[in-house]
Amino acid sequence: MNRQFRLKRRPVGRVTREDFDLVEAPVPEPAEGQAVIRNLYLSLDPTNRIWMSDQPQYMPPVAIGEVMRGGGIGRVVASRNPAYREGDLVNGILGWQDYYVAGAPGEMFAPSVIPDGLPIPLPTLMGACGMTGLTAYFGLTEIGQPKPGETVVVSAAAGAVGSVVGQVAKILGARVVGIAGGAAKCAFITGELGFDAAVDYKAPDWREQLKAATPNGIDVNFENVGGEIMEAVVARMNLYSRMPLCGMISTYNDAQRPRYDLSPFLMKRIRLQGFIILDFKDRYIEGSMQLAQWLMEGKLKARETVVEGLDKAPEALNMLFDGSNIGKLIVKI
Amino acid sequence: MNRQFRLKRRPVGRVTREDFDLVEAPVPEPAEGQAVIRNLYLSLDPTNRIWMSDQPQYMPPVAIGEVMRGGGIGRVVASRNPAYREGDLVNGILGWQDYYVAGAPGEMFAPSVIPDGLPIPLPTLMGACGMTGLTAYFGLTEIGQPKPGETVVVSAAAGAVGSVVGQVAKILGARVVGIAGGAAKCAFITGELGFDAAVDYKAPDWREQLKAATPNGIDVNFENVGGEIMEAVVARMNLYSRMPLCGMISTYNDAQRPRYDLSPFLMKRIRLQGFIILDFKDRYIEGSMQLAQWLMEGKLKARETVVEGLDKAPEALNMLFDGSNIGKLIVKI
Repeated sequence: MNRQFRLKRRPVGRVTREDFDLVEAPVPEPAEGQAVIRNLYLSLDPTNRIWMSDQPQYMPPVAIGEVMRGGGIGRVVASRNPAYREGDLVNGILGWQDYYVAGAPGEMFAPSVIPDGLPIPLPTLMGACGMTGLTAYFGLTEIGQPKPGETVVVSAAAGAVGSVVGQVAKILGARVVGIAGGAAKCAFITGELGFDAAVDYKAPDWREQLKAATPNGIDVNFENVGGEIMEAVVARMNLYSRMPLCGMISTYNDAQRPRYDLSPFLMKRIRLQGFIILDFKDRYIEGSMQLAQWLMEGKLKARETVVEGLDKAPEALNMLFDGSNIGKLIVKI
Repeated sequence: MNRQFRLKRRPVGRVTREDFDLVEAPVPEPAEGQAVIRNLYLSLDPTNRIWMSDQPQYMPPVAIGEVMRGGGIGRVVASRNPAYREGDLVNGILGWQDYYVAGAPGEMFAPSVIPDGLPIPLPTLMGACGMTGLTAYFGLTEIGQPKPGETVVVSAAAGAVGSVVGQVAKILGARVVGIAGGAAKCAFITGELGFDAAVDYKAPDWREQLKAATPNGIDVNFENVGGEIMEAVVARMNLYSRMPLCGMISTYNDAQRPRYDLSPFLMKRIRLQGFIILDFKDRYIEGSMQLAQWLMEGKLKARETVVEGLDKAPEALNMLFDGSNIGKLIVKI
């Protein structure tokens, strides 16, 4: 059977199992021009929470009754489409389900075939060398544009995007400060990943830690979190600093969107640029090759948290908001 | 005598005469390396209000007891500095006073000599062909980067900066919508200045006017005003649109700085860039020459509101906040 999580209602606050119907549909057969994909891994991302809501957003929200949208990796099990051969691994928006039909009417993005024989584990192809790695890479290099010796701050620093942002910034010669929750994550980013300093936002003195870690102010703020942490970072940003705005996860569960003072952006001539990875879709190959090269050279370390079982997806998504994952959060189906 | 407005206290809300001491000092004599300048015109600008406050800002605030900082044009009446000859006209931060001493200790910016024989009236050299014109020109072309056919919206559109922004955007081939207060200003920007449409923010249906005037959304928002007008504009900004943040005058008299939702900047990948004209100081000559050429060709129209008498400066500044000036606001000393 093809288990499918269909959105039953728009979550209020945290996501719960009850926000979905888990239905069992027959395993699909490919029509002419289609391919059927067995999903292997699901990517859990903060943006999933946005897609469940009906706030204004960069794609249509998931409709009520629709299979929950989500990235994943799967294997072609039947094909009547020359672009896909049986046995191919593919990467795409496969949804929270066991099977995906490529080439079906209304398909938003066609999954892309993963080249054979890549010496990179599949979870890493979803994380540090996949969409989240690319998000970090292009947001940092194209918008943040750190120069050697500059100070880069990244929030959600032990997460999928943040962990790559900090490592790439180190490769580019910046001083890197990560903001993360708890001693274990802080030890991970400074120890395992080589960040110059960590700020534990769960510690009562996090503001003092931030100040101590950024004696020369902040030149690039790669923003993943929003809220009062973001405001404290903005307050320390330098003249002509840059702020790639990747996400504001701390506020996605809030009924009311928080509001911010824009005066510092004027007074310090900060460049703020929102982006999502789709903005760089013409450059995925270039970015992936660079990330893969750094991975092989040992300059980039990949880390994933893998949850077993499709049925765990709704609850597992909350780990992103609780901060209970390290690195890329993945469901193994 | 040298009349000087010295800041007595930081204004709360609107600026009043009582926020200053008007003192009479002797006319200064130049020491070696100095020149004495008789001030002729004072430039009144929204940023004057920021300088009077102690909020975080891009220059030190004016100190209590200090002569109020302000731009102006004057004539050299005595010089012991080879950079200035008696009779030279100069442009600089001359202060709210009758005389300025160039080359005095602690001078922040040395006034620059205005070339002889320019066929441009002095008030226009402070407005459309001066600092405010340059602010419009560089903010629009370097940050806004409008392409032909795109929609540019500018707030405070009948003001010194806004009136030039809209005219330059027209020269560059954009569709231009100005937001201004009252029928007279709206008629001025569409009639005299050639904007494509005006939105009267004092009319009860201004939101509908904005919607009707921007059927294809907004590609560039040149922001001068802030507050709820800005929020309504941001709500209509397009994917990948740009927002030069020049000022937020509607809120400078407020005790509490207003706060804004940043979600649209993320979802629509808007680039927001704060700037002040000093950021472009290496390119003043290039910009001034372009503006002067357009003025001569009749493509750029200059408009000033001139108030007579130095003693009127504090009250006159409020005209900017009431919207009772059209074009550049100047005090003739």
